[in-house]
Amino acid sequence: MTTTPTASPATTDLAEVAARLDAEDPLAHARDRFLLPPDVVYLDGNSLGPLPAAVPPVLTDVMTRQWGTDLIGSWNDNGWWEAPLRVGDAIGALLGAAPGQTVAGDSTSVQLYTALDAAVALRPGRTLLVTDPGHFPTDRYVAAAVAERRGLELRRVPPAELPGFLRAEGERVAVVSYSPVDFRTGELFDMRALTRAAHDAGAPAVWDLCHAAGALPVELDALGVDFAVGCGYKFLSGGPGAPAYLYVAHRYHAELRTPLPGWTGHADPFGLSRDYAPAPGIARARIGTPPILSLLALEAALTAYDGVDLADVRAKSLSLTGFFLRCADELLAPFGFTSVTPADPDRRGSQVSLRHPHAHALTRALAERGVIADMRAPDLLRFGVHGLYTSHGDLLTAAGCLRDIVAEGAYDPTPRVTGPVT
Amino acid sequence: MTTTPTASPATTDLAEVAARLDAEDPLAHARDRFLLPPDVVYLDGNSLGPLPAAVPPVLTDVMTRQWGTDLIGSWNDNGWWEAPLRVGDAIGALLGAAPGQTVAGDSTSVQLYTALDAAVALRPGRTLLVTDPGHFPTDRYVAAAVAERRGLELRRVPPAELPGFLRAEGERVAVVSYSPVDFRTGELFDMRALTRAAHDAGAPAVWDLCHAAGALPVELDALGVDFAVGCGYKFLSGGPGAPAYLYVAHRYHAELRTPLPGWTGHADPFGLSRDYAPAPGIARARIGTPPILSLLALEAALTAYDGVDLADVRAKSLSLTGFFLRCADELLAPFGFTSVTPADPDRRGSQVSLRHPHAHALTRALAERGVIADMRAPDLLRFGVHGLYTSHGDLLTAAGCLRDIVAEGAYDPTPRVTGPVT
Repeated sequence: MTTTPTASPATTDLAEVAARLDAEDPLAHARDRFLLPPDVVYLDGNSLGPLPAAVPPVLTDVMTRQWGTDLIGSWNDNGWWEAPLRVGDAIGALLGAAPGQTVAGDSTSVQLYTALDAAVALRPGRTLLVTDPGHFPTDRYVAAAVAERRGLELRRVPPAELPGFLRAEGERVAVVSYSPVDFRTGELFDMRALTRAAHDAGAPAVWDLCHAAGALPVELDALGVDFAVGCGYKFLSGGPGAPAYLYVAHRYHAELRTPLPGWTGHADPFGLSRDYAPAPGIARARIGTPPILSLLALEAALTAYDGVDLADVRAKSLSLTGFFLRCADELLAPFGFTSVTPADPDRRGSQVSLRHPHAHALTRALAERGVIADMRAPDLLRFGVHGLYTSHGDLLTAAGCLRDIVAEGAYDPTPRVTGPVT
Repeated sequence: MTTTPTASPATTDLAEVAARLDAEDPLAHARDRFLLPPDVVYLDGNSLGPLPAAVPPVLTDVMTRQWGTDLIGSWNDNGWWEAPLRVGDAIGALLGAAPGQTVAGDSTSVQLYTALDAAVALRPGRTLLVTDPGHFPTDRYVAAAVAERRGLELRRVPPAELPGFLRAEGERVAVVSYSPVDFRTGELFDMRALTRAAHDAGAPAVWDLCHAAGALPVELDALGVDFAVGCGYKFLSGGPGAPAYLYVAHRYHAELRTPLPGWTGHADPFGLSRDYAPAPGIARARIGTPPILSLLALEAALTAYDGVDLADVRAKSLSLTGFFLRCADELLAPFGFTSVTPADPDRRGSQVSLRHPHAHALTRALAERGVIADMRAPDLLRFGVHGLYTSHGDLLTAAGCLRDIVAEGAYDPTPRVTGPVT
C-alpha cells in the first residue's frame, strides 16, 4: 500500500496557483511518458531521471529477442553497430546539433578527456587550459589531468570573470571548459556570450551539458560551439549510468585526433589493419564496444521528447522553478532557508537550491515523507524539476513537507554525507 | 516454428564419439544456465556470449524496481555504487585474482589505455613499449597511442620471439602488452613464461584476457601478473558491449596514477574537493558513472559459473576443440579446409579456426543453416566453444553442415566483409 506524500495545508493562494498552473500546463500529458512511483514526489531527475514508459518494452526486446535469439547477428540486423551514431544524433537533435556531429557512449569523464585533449591539440603553443573553479568534480579533475599531460597551466576562472580574463590573457588560452548550469546552485550562465568570448580569443569552447541537455534548448550549431559532452542519465532519463555523448563541430572532424583510438572508430573496423586510421566524421570518436543494453535503454528514453518542443519544456521548467522559489519565500524563508538560485529566469537552470545548515538531515527527512530531493555538501538542498513530468503541485507538496519537518523539528541534525553527487 | 540444424550423416564413428562424450560430460547440466535458441548451433560465444538464464529476472528487477521504484536511492540501497568493485571481484575470482584488485567498467579500449599508461609510468627512462603484431586491433592502436603520448618507441614482437627479444633489449622495455590467446588462430601462448620473461627484464606485463577469461583458468596472482584487462561479453556472456575490467596487482595500488581521474575514483567522491585525490586501492581506477544496466546484467551472467571449477571448463573446452579438430580432419580437410589452431592442447585456446578462401561466404551459408560461427579477414572461419554450453554434438553438426555446403557448392563465393570483429 502506497500513500502520496502530503504536507499540512499551504496558503490557499499557493494551492490555487499550483492547481491553476497545472490545469493550464500544455505538457501535462507528457507525465504519462514516465513510470513515476505513485508514492513519491520525485525532484531528483537532475541526478537520475525516472524510468520512461518506453524503456521496459524496448530493453526487454533487446535482451530477450535481440541478444537472446538473434545473438551476434544483431550487430548488423538490429542496428547495434550504428547505435552510437544513431543515439548520438537523437541526442544532438535536443542540443541544436545537425546530424553527424554527436556520438553516444562511454562516460562523461571519458568523453570530456577526449574533448579536452582533442581541443588542446588544435592550439599548439597556447599554454592555458581555463575552467570553472565551481565545475563538477570530474570536469575539474580531468581538466587538471589533460593540462598536466599536455604541459599546460590550469587556470580556474569563474564564469562571470571569464570574458575579462579572456580579453586580458586570451591569446595564451588553448581551450575553455565550462558548464552552462552550476550543478550546485542551478545558476544558468550565458553560453552564447561565453562561447563568443572564447572565440574572440581564438580558443575553442568545451561545454559540459549534463545539467542542461533535455531541460532547456541548447543551440550548439547556432552558437558555434566547438565541443560538448554530457551524460544520458539526468534530464535525458536514460537510466543509471546511461552512456554519455560527445559533440564535435563538423569543421573539426578532418583534423580530429582522439587520445583513445579504439577499434570501433577505425576507418575499416573489420579490416584488422595494423595501424589506426580514423573513420570519417564523428565516427572517429567512437572508442570501444559500447554497452548496448544501457545504450538502447537511453535511445528508448529519448522518445519521451517525441513531438515536444524544447521551448515548451523550458517554459514549463521556468514556471516550476519560479513557483518553487515563491513557495520557498513564503513557506521556508521563515525557517532559515535561503535560495542560492537566481530569481532572474534568464539565469536559472532547471533546479532550485536552498541553503540550510542541516541540508543533509533534511533531505533524509524529506525522503522519509516521500519527497526525493538531494543535497550537495555542505549545506545545499537541491530540487530538480523537469518540464515533462514535474507538476507545480509536486513542488508545493515538497515545500510544505520541508516546512513541516523543520517546524516539527522532525529530523536528525547529526551531520552525515553520503549518496551520489552529480 | 523452429528447426534444429541438421547435416547429412557423418561417419558412424564420429557420431558415436560425440554421443559418448556428451553423455559423460560432467558439465552437461550447465547448458541449462543459458537460453540458447533451439534452432541454432551457436559457436560464436567468443564474440558474443549467449543470454544466461540468470540475466532476464535480474535486469528486469534492476529496470523496474531498482530504477523505476527505488530511483536515486538505489545507488546506496541496491548496491549500485559498489557494483564496479563487486563485479570486479566476481570477475577476479575467475582470473585467480584475490579480491580488491579488479574493477569493472568502461570498455576494454579504455581499460587498456589506463593499464598501459599506468604501467609505462612505473618505468621512467625506459623507451620501448612492446606488443604483439598479431594483437587485436584495439590493443595495437591503443599501444601506439600510449607510446606516442609517452614518447616511447613501439616494438611489435611476436610472442614466440618475445623471450629472446627481452634477453637482448629487455632493459629498455617499459612494458609488454600481450594476449594469452590469438584472437584469429586460437593459439594459446604460455602466459607464465612470458610474464616471467618480462619480469626478468624488469618490465611489467599487461595482459588482455578477452579470449581467455571464463574459458580457462588464468592465475593472475600466482603468475605475478602486473596488469590485465578484458571484456565482459565473450566467454563471460555479460551481454553485448558488457563492461570491461581492469586488474592491477595489489603491489602497485599505492603508486597507481590513472590517466582518466574521474570523480568515482576519488578518495572522497561526495566531498566535491577541488583537486583529485585517488581512492585507496583499486577503487582509484574507477572513472565515470558506470552503465548500471549493462554492469548488473554482467554480474548476473557471472552466476553461470556458480559451483563450477574452471579446470572442468577448460577440460571440456579441450575435449570440444579436440573433437572438432578431428571432425575437421575427417570431414573438411578433403574440401580444402586447413586448421590454423594448434593440435597441441597446451597451445589451444577455446576456439578452432579453419582456413578457407571463401571463409566469409561459408560463414554466411552456415548461418543460413542455423550454425553461427564467424570469420576473420581474410580467410579464417572461427568456431568458439564454451565448456558451459557447447556440446560435441553441436560441433559435429557444424562440421557436417560445412561439409555439406561445400560439397553441394551451396554458397555465394562473392567476397564480402562485414560484421563485428573481436
